[in-house]
Amino acid sequence: MKYLHTMVRVTDLDASLNFYCRALGLTELSRKDSQTGRFTLVFLSCKGDENAQIELTHNWDPENYTGGRNFGHIAYAVENIYETCERLMTHGVVINRPPRDGRMAFVRSPDNISIELLQAGAPLAEAEPWISMPNSGVW
Amino acid sequence: MKYLHTMVRVTDLDASLNFYCRALGLTELSRKDSQTGRFTLVFLSCKGDENAQIELTHNWDPENYTGGRNFGHIAYAVENIYETCERLMTHGVVINRPPRDGRMAFVRSPDNISIELLQAGAPLAEAEPWISMPNSGVW
Repeated sequence: MKYLHTMVRVTDLDASLNFYCRALGLTELSRKDSQTGRFTLVFLSCKGDENAQIELTHNWDPENYTGGRNFGHIAYAVENIYETCERLMTHGVVINRPPRDGRMAFVRSPDNISIELLQAGAPLAEAEPWISMPNSGVW
Repeated sequence: MKYLHTMVRVTDLDASLNFYCRALGLTELSRKDSQTGRFTLVFLSCKGDENAQIELTHNWDPENYTGGRNFGHIAYAVENIYETCERLMTHGVVINRPPRDGRMAFVRSPDNISIELLQAGAPLAEAEPWISMPNSGVW
């Protein structure tokens, strides 16, 4: 038995790829368009960790994707949490829970999927602008 | 960068461990009780695939966990999808989408988290009782 992926539905595929790939740092592995099903599936993973994937499901017929409380978040370890958060911010992503402790941050995808970022190994030394950055919204 | 886990909130920890461990087949890796935070975290994975985990968050103060459409499902490859579905049924789990094709099934956790099961490798030969088993509910 083996973990394959966590699937999330996305309203805007371009905005989602901007978030998950260019801002967060995941890589697109494969894509499937279904004309008959009117959907596109895109499989993403971290580089070097291709066995644990996210599947983005984009249904071509618009639907409003609300969140629920039974699902919590998807978590990743990152090499440098400050660099990851800086890159997310340059792509317009709000850091809901800034890494004030050099260890943990939360952001949300365009469809409000909560993403937890954890510093790999020991926490980084506490540093500005993170120390002074307040929480924003919920995650 | 590395995938760590997908977190889901659970209303009833015993019912959830019955589902995720005894019925589905995951293994408990670690557990943390927080008296001050009034929550229990339980980390689960497939045997031999400990790097890709599920985190169960059980808040001790009851809350109603509704689902949303932005989260889709968590998917696992299984060695024998018929045996997995039989084990789930003996633990009282409804097979929402039976593996009529010998390849794919869907079930739901006690808190309505959708779980996709995919036969590892080639599909199994189509067989009863699966061929005649209708869909049940949504997944």
